[in-house]
Amino acid sequence: LVDWADEEGARFGRSLMGSAASAGALDAETELAHLVDRQGVKLPDALAENGITLDGMQTARGYFDTLDAVAYLELHIEQGPVLEAMKKPVGVVLGTMGVERYNLRFIGQAAHSGAAPIHLRKDAFLAAAEFALACREISIKYSGKTPRTRVVATCGVVKVEPNFVTAVPGSTEISIDLRALDAKVLKRMLADSQRASQKAAKKHLVKVTWSPLLHITPRLFDETLMKLVRASIKEVTGSAPELPSGPLHDAAEMAAVVPTAMVFAMSSPGISHTRLEDTPVPALDKSIRAFLLTVDRTLEHFAR
Amino acid sequence: LVDWADEEGARFGRSLMGSAASAGALDAETELAHLVDRQGVKLPDALAENGITLDGMQTARGYFDTLDAVAYLELHIEQGPVLEAMKKPVGVVLGTMGVERYNLRFIGQAAHSGAAPIHLRKDAFLAAAEFALACREISIKYSGKTPRTRVVATCGVVKVEPNFVTAVPGSTEISIDLRALDAKVLKRMLADSQRASQKAAKKHLVKVTWSPLLHITPRLFDETLMKLVRASIKEVTGSAPELPSGPLHDAAEMAAVVPTAMVFAMSSPGISHTRLEDTPVPALDKSIRAFLLTVDRTLEHFAR
Repeated sequence: LVDWADEEGARFGRSLMGSAASAGALDAETELAHLVDRQGVKLPDALAENGITLDGMQTARGYFDTLDAVAYLELHIEQGPVLEAMKKPVGVVLGTMGVERYNLRFIGQAAHSGAAPIHLRKDAFLAAAEFALACREISIKYSGKTPRTRVVATCGVVKVEPNFVTAVPGSTEISIDLRALDAKVLKRMLADSQRASQKAAKKHLVKVTWSPLLHITPRLFDETLMKLVRASIKEVTGSAPELPSGPLHDAAEMAAVVPTAMVFAMSSPGISHTRLEDTPVPALDKSIRAFLLTVDRTLEHFAR
Repeated sequence: LVDWADEEGARFGRSLMGSAASAGALDAETELAHLVDRQGVKLPDALAENGITLDGMQTARGYFDTLDAVAYLELHIEQGPVLEAMKKPVGVVLGTMGVERYNLRFIGQAAHSGAAPIHLRKDAFLAAAEFALACREISIKYSGKTPRTRVVATCGVVKVEPNFVTAVPGSTEISIDLRALDAKVLKRMLADSQRASQKAAKKHLVKVTWSPLLHITPRLFDETLMKLVRASIKEVTGSAPELPSGPLHDAAEMAAVVPTAMVFAMSSPGISHTRLEDTPVPALDKSIRAFLLTVDRTLEHFAR
């Protein structure tokens, strides 16, 4: 049983800190030494309060190897609306999606909303709007009909300048977050969205630049373990729906070093990171039973 | 010759203060008494420093009537790119456009960018993006081929919430500013854009509300005076292009109480309210000569 340090990265911004260290995927000195929380506390000082040092974290992978772990299993809430929409309390997680995240800046020319005729405008916001709608179409184009082939595209940040009622927007910043379980599909989505941004920029006579924010490789879970998860959930609930995980989890780090699988408990409503979200008790009960059954079966499997 | 107080409204936010008072279109007590500038100075105190009172302003219309003015003529920079694009130094202004200005709020549901499948999203920004692009199409649909029938639509303010890279936007505020010289056309543009907002909201499973910001009636200039303006500009420059004014001017207030016309001098670049904008000296020279010729001809006309 493991209690990972700081899956969310809420205090210092670095997610999956404990699991990444244990997987040997974290260079503590380079990635953590400079981090400071909102109250100005340095990460190394916060670690020291708990008897941990950056150097100590570098020994985590070595320690993990001495455990000789045969599998990693994780139970988590879905943080999404898929199971609730299907009216299913528990699901098999296929893996964590890869992420391509960029910030775009469309640069046109601010102008007076009354004085500038439409055909002489260089409206940066309209270009960003076309881009956002095109990205939605791209996500629909690449989404297959199975949970494994579902993809998403999101424009979450939009900042318009000068942001006046009477000004044609001269520049617009917009973020794009693309996710897919299949690395090849993710690559094609990125190429399509880059073309869409060029097309939108051309139509509205503006320029566009791309700045990278984050790149994460998809992590698929272990087929053998997933079979055990599937059978266990089916035994407890009657059916075992499959779904990818859009959010990252500690399981994503573990998947690189040990056979890994995950179970999702239904969220209601599945809107993530809010007190409004809950897992109804019957679904929680079924999830825990299915998870413990998976643990038993995994132990049996590896004892053979 | 008149030097109007505060055409721009830059300090207290109320545009056309002097001309509106002189046209009897300003209720100083109701509209001005409560206004305060960014340094906390009250408008009545700023007036007092210059020997003026709110009560005194209410006498402006009476004073204007004693002048027995026969016409009002104004020379202004275009603040737009039209004359420069036409390579013309001076133009005849047809009138000031009417304005319909609203703030819209699209309300959906914030969700995790990875966890929420596209078909279960209520993305408020995508609805706002569809609305903005539809408004551009509406302005193209209602724009005729003549300067008199040119119309514009602008979304200048866009505010997305929660504005996180990893969040589907739960709500989006967007402004719309519609302008036309023809009041009937303006009304139709507004009805079309209201329908477009409903359609966008429906497509993205969100709600939309409208809040009024500003309503201004179109003000067309005097046909007789425009003939004199046209002839004068033609005499000085060889041709007299016509164009509407998107921005408001003191002439808009005067048009309600006395025959009024305006001359525009070319702006380069025509982007408004920036130090980058200028009127090249040859264009300035021709504008002034055309304006003075108009003044002479107007005096002649009314002396008959």
